[in-house]
Amino acid sequence: MAKKRIGSRTVKLENGPVIISTSSIVGPKEAQGPLKDYFDIKLDDDLYGEKSWEFAESKMVQTVVEHAVKKANKTIKDVNYMVAGDLLNQLLSTSFAARAVSIPFLGVYGACSTMAQSLSIGSMLIDGGFADLVAASTSSHYCTAERQFRFPLELGNQKPMTAQWTVTGSGCSLLSSQGNGPKVKYITIGKVIDEGITDANNMGAAMAPAAVDTIYSYFNDTKDDPNSFDMIATGDLGKVGMQIAIDLLKEKGIDISKVYTDCGVEIFDLENQDVHCGGSGCGCSASVFNGYIYKMLKDKKFNKVMLVSTGALLSPTSTLQKESIPSVAHAVIIANE
Amino acid sequence: MAKKRIGSRTVKLENGPVIISTSSIVGPKEAQGPLKDYFDIKLDDDLYGEKSWEFAESKMVQTVVEHAVKKANKTIKDVNYMVAGDLLNQLLSTSFAARAVSIPFLGVYGACSTMAQSLSIGSMLIDGGFADLVAASTSSHYCTAERQFRFPLELGNQKPMTAQWTVTGSGCSLLSSQGNGPKVKYITIGKVIDEGITDANNMGAAMAPAAVDTIYSYFNDTKDDPNSFDMIATGDLGKVGMQIAIDLLKEKGIDISKVYTDCGVEIFDLENQDVHCGGSGCGCSASVFNGYIYKMLKDKKFNKVMLVSTGALLSPTSTLQKESIPSVAHAVIIANE
Repeated sequence: MAKKRIGSRTVKLENGPVIISTSSIVGPKEAQGPLKDYFDIKLDDDLYGEKSWEFAESKMVQTVVEHAVKKANKTIKDVNYMVAGDLLNQLLSTSFAARAVSIPFLGVYGACSTMAQSLSIGSMLIDGGFADLVAASTSSHYCTAERQFRFPLELGNQKPMTAQWTVTGSGCSLLSSQGNGPKVKYITIGKVIDEGITDANNMGAAMAPAAVDTIYSYFNDTKDDPNSFDMIATGDLGKVGMQIAIDLLKEKGIDISKVYTDCGVEIFDLENQDVHCGGSGCGCSASVFNGYIYKMLKDKKFNKVMLVSTGALLSPTSTLQKESIPSVAHAVIIANE
Repeated sequence: MAKKRIGSRTVKLENGPVIISTSSIVGPKEAQGPLKDYFDIKLDDDLYGEKSWEFAESKMVQTVVEHAVKKANKTIKDVNYMVAGDLLNQLLSTSFAARAVSIPFLGVYGACSTMAQSLSIGSMLIDGGFADLVAASTSSHYCTAERQFRFPLELGNQKPMTAQWTVTGSGCSLLSSQGNGPKVKYITIGKVIDEGITDANNMGAAMAPAAVDTIYSYFNDTKDDPNSFDMIATGDLGKVGMQIAIDLLKEKGIDISKVYTDCGVEIFDLENQDVHCGGSGCGCSASVFNGYIYKMLKDKKFNKVMLVSTGALLSPTSTLQKESIPSVAHAVIIANE
């Protein structure tokens, strides 16, 4: 068996790629939420000076990559790979940001699981000796996602209470083979799981089984203790999906309830911000991880966390063709020494 | 510098991941082309028994993954990762194929550069000690791509002579840490290059500078000799882009003309199959590499090849927003011992 594999699905990173810096940017609504003090850049205007929301989102990606590099006292030329993607068709915002920064580019798509996916691939490229510095990034924008996946905003459509609110935000982690900071220790890559949910306004229920499969695999492979974590954070299951994840894991004999939260539940004030079940979108776990969680690790308020970004891999085309929602979740375990 | 890096952009794979098997599948038109004897599976009907072209494409992906695994006398459970993507929004065909095969899944998007991208990531995961067996795959389908990127086929739109024909095809390479077969030796990951071309019916001209940037970087990093290759094959620049690539590389002092071809030019009979500048689509370099090139390596008719799949990262949305076409190309060097 490959020397870094543990159990059936998990890998152990022997050299512990270091997250030497992060950057996060959010839109006006997210900047009013409970995590507002943790984000690096808060936009007053979700057009960000651009001619369209798509290119505003692209500028957000470019901004966090450049900002994370600058915070680490590095230059763009030092970065060996940009591993990144977003929710838009053909990764529009990421592709154009990659053009702007001119870093060798590996585009990834995992819907809202992208932050954990780009962190995973980036970490393995460093741990495997292929890179010294990797920028792992993703983004989403309420206005671009809504018009692509659901309806033009101008229609003013109502959503059911199980729906989530796509976060306008982006985040970048700068992974390094050297330096100081929290280290990526283990990675469990998810399988595509589909329990037959067809309601695109209930993504939490669709994605929860994928999160459960990945979290269970990690604990089964490593025999680690859930309570050794300061936080286990799913990407964005929202309020409904979060409870499903807790229940399904308890049925499998794993109780994460003491340390568990969801980025989609953390980023908004669910009582007062009219976001129904919470935040969603690649930018949700990206901004919560690179804003809040990373800083808690860096300040030694957290010692060990698991980020499990979750993605729903449906497309409007597959939905029209009456298919249910395939989902995926990847787990990244990050700890201080 | 990370121990496997050479020069500014290239990595050397010390453990030489082995391509132990491949599988290729093509549609009826490709099955009448010059490479027809090299493809494993040739479809009479491009719906492949499914209810839509999208799910026909998805079944093609599933078929080549399962077929490559079977040819190597392995089982699906032995495969640690599926690294794959396609041209469709949200990687529709790949996501649903990943659901069917249930292999831990890393979705990638690089437009028509995807075969080289999935081979690159898969090879680094094996060489880095994270996996024993990786399925690297991609696909495209004339009917799904045309209606997503251009016009519904029913309209019968005409194309200019610079346009290319999207290949209906899929291919999978099964990468292994052990076994016999050609090995992946070097990888050069591309930057996103955009020289301002805005004509989506002239993708070859848009993508050629990206191919040139990557090929030049490889030779600059390694000081390798172009004529040491039996074949350097770009992904799908077509007839026009191919000539541009030769000319631009000559200007930079590198002459690849003796060993150079393009998968888009090879897969069709350009004189008689009415495909204008040649084939395109992720499935083009996927079927040509996994069908023709791999077999030439396996039979020792080729000893050393470079696959440079090229991708145009435009989206219909960015085109409507008057943006030019960003492109990317990745180079994978494969050789017998």
